[in-house]
Amino acid sequence: MTPFQKKRLEYQPRIPPALMKITDVCLRRKTKSRAAEPPLRPLFPKTWDQKGYELVLGQGKKTPLRIGVFFSGGQAPGGHNVIAGLWDAMQKIHTSSQLIGFLGGPSGVVEQKWRYLKLADIDAVRNMGGFDLLGSGRTKIETDEQMLSAMRSCKELTLDGLVVIGGDDSNTNAAILAEYFLANGCPTRVVGVPKTIDGDLRSEEIEISFGFDSACKTYSEMIGNIARDAKSAKKYYHFIKLMGRSASHITLECAFATQPNLAIMGEEGKSLDHIVLEMADLICKRKEAGKEYGIILIPEGIIEFIPEMKVLIQELGQSPEHLKTKSKILFAKLPEKIQAELLAERDPHGNVALSQIETEFLLIELVKKELSQRSAYKGKFSPIAHFFGYEGRACYPSNFDANYCAALGALAALAVRDEATGVICAIRNLAQGVEKWECALVPIVHLMHMEERKGVQKQVIQKALVNLEGPVFARFSKLRKSWELDDAYCFPGPMQFWGETEVIDSVPQTLCL
Amino acid sequence: MTPFQKKRLEYQPRIPPALMKITDVCLRRKTKSRAAEPPLRPLFPKTWDQKGYELVLGQGKKTPLRIGVFFSGGQAPGGHNVIAGLWDAMQKIHTSSQLIGFLGGPSGVVEQKWRYLKLADIDAVRNMGGFDLLGSGRTKIETDEQMLSAMRSCKELTLDGLVVIGGDDSNTNAAILAEYFLANGCPTRVVGVPKTIDGDLRSEEIEISFGFDSACKTYSEMIGNIARDAKSAKKYYHFIKLMGRSASHITLECAFATQPNLAIMGEEGKSLDHIVLEMADLICKRKEAGKEYGIILIPEGIIEFIPEMKVLIQELGQSPEHLKTKSKILFAKLPEKIQAELLAERDPHGNVALSQIETEFLLIELVKKELSQRSAYKGKFSPIAHFFGYEGRACYPSNFDANYCAALGALAALAVRDEATGVICAIRNLAQGVEKWECALVPIVHLMHMEERKGVQKQVIQKALVNLEGPVFARFSKLRKSWELDDAYCFPGPMQFWGETEVIDSVPQTLCL
Repeated sequence: MTPFQKKRLEYQPRIPPALMKITDVCLRRKTKSRAAEPPLRPLFPKTWDQKGYELVLGQGKKTPLRIGVFFSGGQAPGGHNVIAGLWDAMQKIHTSSQLIGFLGGPSGVVEQKWRYLKLADIDAVRNMGGFDLLGSGRTKIETDEQMLSAMRSCKELTLDGLVVIGGDDSNTNAAILAEYFLANGCPTRVVGVPKTIDGDLRSEEIEISFGFDSACKTYSEMIGNIARDAKSAKKYYHFIKLMGRSASHITLECAFATQPNLAIMGEEGKSLDHIVLEMADLICKRKEAGKEYGIILIPEGIIEFIPEMKVLIQELGQSPEHLKTKSKILFAKLPEKIQAELLAERDPHGNVALSQIETEFLLIELVKKELSQRSAYKGKFSPIAHFFGYEGRACYPSNFDANYCAALGALAALAVRDEATGVICAIRNLAQGVEKWECALVPIVHLMHMEERKGVQKQVIQKALVNLEGPVFARFSKLRKSWELDDAYCFPGPMQFWGETEVIDSVPQTLCL
Repeated sequence: MTPFQKKRLEYQPRIPPALMKITDVCLRRKTKSRAAEPPLRPLFPKTWDQKGYELVLGQGKKTPLRIGVFFSGGQAPGGHNVIAGLWDAMQKIHTSSQLIGFLGGPSGVVEQKWRYLKLADIDAVRNMGGFDLLGSGRTKIETDEQMLSAMRSCKELTLDGLVVIGGDDSNTNAAILAEYFLANGCPTRVVGVPKTIDGDLRSEEIEISFGFDSACKTYSEMIGNIARDAKSAKKYYHFIKLMGRSASHITLECAFATQPNLAIMGEEGKSLDHIVLEMADLICKRKEAGKEYGIILIPEGIIEFIPEMKVLIQELGQSPEHLKTKSKILFAKLPEKIQAELLAERDPHGNVALSQIETEFLLIELVKKELSQRSAYKGKFSPIAHFFGYEGRACYPSNFDANYCAALGALAALAVRDEATGVICAIRNLAQGVEKWECALVPIVHLMHMEERKGVQKQVIQKALVNLEGPVFARFSKLRKSWELDDAYCFPGPMQFWGETEVIDSVPQTLCL
């Protein structure tokens, strides 16, 4: 263990006072609360009209709890603290409580792979990154057989609760499981915890998913370092692609933190030509100002937002041999490497594997071409491509995420104790101090709607995209012009854990707006 | 400015007591000192037999100094602190001293591009990464015209000293310039400062170049994050290439810091087949142990150390059409992409641009092929390639580099004051506390020898490679076996600047051995 690791294990996350004294608070059903959208109601006969919960003073039960927990999907910093927060709260409720970890994600529930967690297990992962205590996986508990199997596990372990630490799909799954358990007389309550670095699992009640802050801080450290390098070497254009499948939240947060010359937002829905022209214009303008270097941020999900690429990808998914004229022209324009990636990589459903498409390379090649056609441009365009993703998924959680996750874990324990099911943990006021955080439990069905997925109408949690009408985007829109020519780069530096509050306890900037 | 940046500006680097009280110490010629190697002597008639200097108590001159300074080559964290250290020491000697910064690297000296630095300039970059105060460049001051031009600049500015912050080639240049100035009656002293993240500018007297520590810590943070991800996701083999043109020091230091499953050392000179077999064996062994993930570190410079690749590259450089049989067979075996890179990219001298060769991709492809031919291996090999370089060149300097650089700058001021020329700043005992650091000035010619470069014998500073007979490699050799199967990964986390000494003041592990 490194000296850093040892010290970091000792950090005591701060959680709201109500969760500190968990035996003195209870859940109370909210009197005013939405219900599920009408098309969802037949799918959730037991849970469609349930209300949300808030915390009130009052003595809760003090009997031992038995809770199962698992990670679902990609890593997000802070996951271990959710489990530690859960453990600590369960111990406060009763020292004979037992926490069971399902191994390898949702498949652990279906395939009966679990282990009883001990204090030593928990103490070894406090404030540590990754999901390695239990591992994770992407199995969905969908088929009747899987549901039955999951219920069998919960019954065999006589679980009071099952805590699902996951993103939008995993929480959808949690809602379905909660309904199924109720319908089939299984007393296990199902509680979700909002996890994803992408930041797209948010709603009125859920301000942000955990992991987003730490991942953005890690990416911003690297972007800042590269910006400093660019400003010193004055030679290269760095095209930096950032993880985040659909929404551009990560790119937006990193843009505020580092002030690049250009940050593309997928949600603006610009055409490929438009984006390439915008980049080429920037490069020409900067060349005139004597600057042949720059920083450009690109969200990984951009490719799904470019209208004509979206059509092309759909047509390729259906039948690569029969592209319509527009798509044919576009395809012919793409670099060979990208053509090959579009044709070669398919997921098991025949879809193009978008994460394999090197968008940063595509844009570089198209910008090169555009610049070569501008006779007025006499510069030397030297691009370098980067992709940051895995570096941020399993980093050490920031103080914010460490605190937030410990609170989410405690709130999940409270939900199970007070018999809430099909709910997700929701903490508000996160931009304020921890003592002002407000805890609630929101029925997952409130976040859901019907959406076409692979040609079928499905009940899903809608991914929250960057809101082009909101105050965060408005601020970005106002600032970005001034970042183009002036090198307004910020250098956030590595995440700090000890020292002055303003340095170590910052929250995402997009949360503050 | 970020809150971090503001706080970091306030850090007061620690320097050895002798340099704190610079007006109470003087340089003294060492009585025992090497001379330049015989073949070099005709090239350095004025400086071949000069002796090194050590620090002794004694009153130095207190007249104002005029010093010019420039950065040369790639960024290394701490460069700004060298200039700040130089400034602070010059001010202690006399408050009317003047520091002139040459812009854009050595070309600033030749082309008369400079500016007078003010306190506000210095205060804005204390403990900041990058070289953006002055910029940098790769021009070499070589031709008679350039030398004359450089001398003209120094005379026009009536410089007492010229401080060259650079790597092996730039310090070679400093020695040549010092000799030229002496031979031509120019009173400007030339002093070198050992800069390079690669860590290959070291000798008996120079324990490490500045920047190495910070860069390795930044890369190690990322490698640790990815290792945690690998251990959690259990799906991917991460092939991580690390910057460092020739020597494998960075990879070695990062290996100690993170304990990957495999770290290739270029200096071992293994054949391509050998390396690929080693990787494939590791993957098979780990598969048997139920592990289909891992971390493999690859030094950027590996390609020059693989004997048959070296021959191929030489032959390609001479005449791509006339490869000998062995090279022809090897070339045919390489993936198309690598073939294209080997053929396409040439530097102005016709040499293959090695940094453009995607070695990580080459190895992944060859390992894939090897595994596909092993009928006993039934695993699913999912590789992901990474390259870390620019992220570490301009990061914030670690406390170690911030201190070290401030001391190097002060030592350079002392060298100019006491009229040493053709020397490089050398500080020893770096693994001890700052108060135990020992300062000296070493004639650059002592570090030099004659070497064939592009077919011509040239005077150069020999790049220090990883010493396969030394204690550092011995320790690596002993440990690496145990890293293969057990996941002994360390997670160093982001560099910390405030908190406990053992966390914030660590020095490179390769220095301690």
